[in-house]
Amino acid sequence: MEHTRIKELLKSEEFGKEVIVKGWVRTFRNNQFVAINDGSSINNIQAVIDFENTPDDILRRITTGAAVRVKGILVESQGKGQRVEVKATDISIIGDSDAEKFPLQPKKHSLEFLREIAHLRFRTGTFNAIFKVRNALAFAVNKFFQERDFVYMHTPIITGSDAEGAGEMFRVTTLDLNNLPRTEQGDIDFKEDFFGKSTNLTVSGQLEGELAALAFGNIYTFGPTFRAENSNTTRHLAEFWMIEPEMAFYELEDNMQLAEDLLKYVIRYALDTCPEEIEFLRARLLEEEKSKPQADRSELDLVEKLNFVVQNDFVRLTYTEAIDILMKSKPNQKKQFKYLIEGWGADLQSEHERYLVEKHFKKPVILIDYPREIKSFYMKQNPVDAQGRQTVRAMDILFPGIGEMVGGSQREENLEKLITRMNEVGIPTEEMEWFLDTRRFGSVPHSGFGVGFERLVLFTTGMTNIRDVIPFPRTPKNAEF
Amino acid sequence: MEHTRIKELLKSEEFGKEVIVKGWVRTFRNNQFVAINDGSSINNIQAVIDFENTPDDILRRITTGAAVRVKGILVESQGKGQRVEVKATDISIIGDSDAEKFPLQPKKHSLEFLREIAHLRFRTGTFNAIFKVRNALAFAVNKFFQERDFVYMHTPIITGSDAEGAGEMFRVTTLDLNNLPRTEQGDIDFKEDFFGKSTNLTVSGQLEGELAALAFGNIYTFGPTFRAENSNTTRHLAEFWMIEPEMAFYELEDNMQLAEDLLKYVIRYALDTCPEEIEFLRARLLEEEKSKPQADRSELDLVEKLNFVVQNDFVRLTYTEAIDILMKSKPNQKKQFKYLIEGWGADLQSEHERYLVEKHFKKPVILIDYPREIKSFYMKQNPVDAQGRQTVRAMDILFPGIGEMVGGSQREENLEKLITRMNEVGIPTEEMEWFLDTRRFGSVPHSGFGVGFERLVLFTTGMTNIRDVIPFPRTPKNAEF
Repeated sequence: MEHTRIKELLKSEEFGKEVIVKGWVRTFRNNQFVAINDGSSINNIQAVIDFENTPDDILRRITTGAAVRVKGILVESQGKGQRVEVKATDISIIGDSDAEKFPLQPKKHSLEFLREIAHLRFRTGTFNAIFKVRNALAFAVNKFFQERDFVYMHTPIITGSDAEGAGEMFRVTTLDLNNLPRTEQGDIDFKEDFFGKSTNLTVSGQLEGELAALAFGNIYTFGPTFRAENSNTTRHLAEFWMIEPEMAFYELEDNMQLAEDLLKYVIRYALDTCPEEIEFLRARLLEEEKSKPQADRSELDLVEKLNFVVQNDFVRLTYTEAIDILMKSKPNQKKQFKYLIEGWGADLQSEHERYLVEKHFKKPVILIDYPREIKSFYMKQNPVDAQGRQTVRAMDILFPGIGEMVGGSQREENLEKLITRMNEVGIPTEEMEWFLDTRRFGSVPHSGFGVGFERLVLFTTGMTNIRDVIPFPRTPKNAEF
Repeated sequence: MEHTRIKELLKSEEFGKEVIVKGWVRTFRNNQFVAINDGSSINNIQAVIDFENTPDDILRRITTGAAVRVKGILVESQGKGQRVEVKATDISIIGDSDAEKFPLQPKKHSLEFLREIAHLRFRTGTFNAIFKVRNALAFAVNKFFQERDFVYMHTPIITGSDAEGAGEMFRVTTLDLNNLPRTEQGDIDFKEDFFGKSTNLTVSGQLEGELAALAFGNIYTFGPTFRAENSNTTRHLAEFWMIEPEMAFYELEDNMQLAEDLLKYVIRYALDTCPEEIEFLRARLLEEEKSKPQADRSELDLVEKLNFVVQNDFVRLTYTEAIDILMKSKPNQKKQFKYLIEGWGADLQSEHERYLVEKHFKKPVILIDYPREIKSFYMKQNPVDAQGRQTVRAMDILFPGIGEMVGGSQREENLEKLITRMNEVGIPTEEMEWFLDTRRFGSVPHSGFGVGFERLVLFTTGMTNIRDVIPFPRTPKNAEF
């Protein structure tokens, strides 16, 4: 490795030292100033070329996108905007870039355009910053759980179970679609498929996570999950990463605390380790919001918003309390909600969640104890209350601008209650005997939750479209690259 | 959290302190000694019950697999085999376990049997140890790359590209197999499928990794990959995790060094952080090997073997040198190889790799510069040698007992050579324009490799069947749990 990474050079004090830089040309001004980026930093290093002594055919090939090698002396910069630069004694072209054809020009491109060239958008400052923050958040997730002695479990991606009902699933098959095997009854014979049965891509590792938690105590998953829903929104992906911890002996209070601690820890880690990237994204967001009416702009800038979340306790309240607030709220009274809240039992829509988080409390909110009928079968049932209402020990964490960041619950550990509920909602227990075994043999109170990782990245980077925070987004009619 | 995890208690010196333990009963002897495990340690804590003052109906429910809560005083143990124990003042049952039905009895079960109850095998010492080591290795992978400033990229799982040819693929679809849409020509109309085209599960994140490396410099992936091959062996899975770093400006020497450093780092991390687990697995392996003839037993025990790898340089040699050694070897001369090596150009089989690693060098081997014809299209071509032989800058790292642990190469960065090679092997360049763009715009020398994570876990745990080192193995005709 003969060269030094630009990130190191930008921090260096070793003026007068001979250095070698390798990277891609971002701009070339006045036949003299080459801004070079090697991806190690969002910032470029400037190389100053002695153009009188540089052959013309080299000068012509110093184009945006070209890869160059520069040998020179590290000096204090005379110009504005940088502390150090390289006084080049030699420049050579490693790889050319045809300026006419290279899609990234030294100007502002729209995020929509960049999505179409997702294979090249990593070479912009914005996407460098986004994916550095994503990297920091991913490592922080692992670090947080390792420090607390959780075991990282890789739960399966291909699953024969479709019982959880968290969403529409993708089929996985090796059957020849042009020549499908049939049973005597004329049905497709999945016994002939690769796994000897019908299989799908997982929507959640939770059920397998529970199996592991009831052996190891505390575990987490962090892996891809899938939803085959035809949702073309700025907040949905068909393929996304999810963090799912599951803890034996945790009740709902412990679960809430862990989730709040996790979110604060990882955002703080991003603030601590990516200050330049987050500052860049802060400025980007301010610029973007200039085109909005004053009322639609954020009250806090990105750094203020992240610090606010890290430094303040999340609000905790029950679904019943939330309904009360919403019933009395101005948009409900004035019929401004699309879905008016008419009473207890209503499923909360995005507009209601946003009202609670963005208007009423102005901070992250943990909502608990939802009506049983609008939540999943595996959630622990509370005692029926004085009004005869049946709730479950669910918790959703709602974030400003994002909506649901976390969904979780204490799990129903009572075998009979669980089976009764599965029968009520039509989940075939005979396919889930392995899951029910956890309640048969040493069942204990336990809890867990799921964090949509891209929503976390979205919040931490201040981006607004989820397709901009995953390298190659998969959405309806789109699986490019 | 009112209780203390057993791992902490086993290290504690606070004798006389009142503690609460929660966990699962492993054994209950003499109506008095309860061995309790909560998953935090492979070791149990012993609770000593005052059986005369414990109600009979509680005593009867202290069965293997039951979950219990024990309150008592932490004391120095009088018995052998443990340093501390809990003198119980109160024991209660959290969750019963019917001793007649619980499949895990306090005796040795075969690994085959445990594979059938993969949802419960985590509750054994062996699988506790295996998955703790797996967890340590996974974290070490991330730690290694983060310390070196690599960016963790989540490359896509669902891919529209099937060009890499690394293996058979699984189809991903939401089409109704009983009612497949057809084009006018009668073909299946994949435009109607979820992504608007035919899609598969990825076999490798490499190509997308290259896109990112040529922007960020150094990146890695660590995620699930898939092969739809009907291989029912102890070393193949249909779904497995792979680590794939990709580095701009790295040549083959740098690539080899990084791979060797990575493997040594993660194994050393497992040795440092999981000493009890690895000692347990060492003893397990010695016990297992007792049933083998002396000649088939390992020369080194597990700990010696891991230390040997960490402390010694890997052997590096070219394919051509390896062929020379193999041609002259006893099993080739005596026609003991199933596939005799008759000359340069032969593809190496497992028996040849094992001979080199286990008999000839007795240490990990990095083999480089393979014949172009037996390697992938994207590998950098060496100049043709004096004998007219065309090789590529491939590298495979071979490990004793495992075979191929790492496969990698310097990549072909020359656009014309790459296109020519793609045409020769029949890869449609028009579907790969995004990949070729990396060679059009600022192409640079770069390299990368892939590590099969389960093979790494297999090696580090001394297990022999890859199905025992992933929580829920997916293999032909098997996608249980």
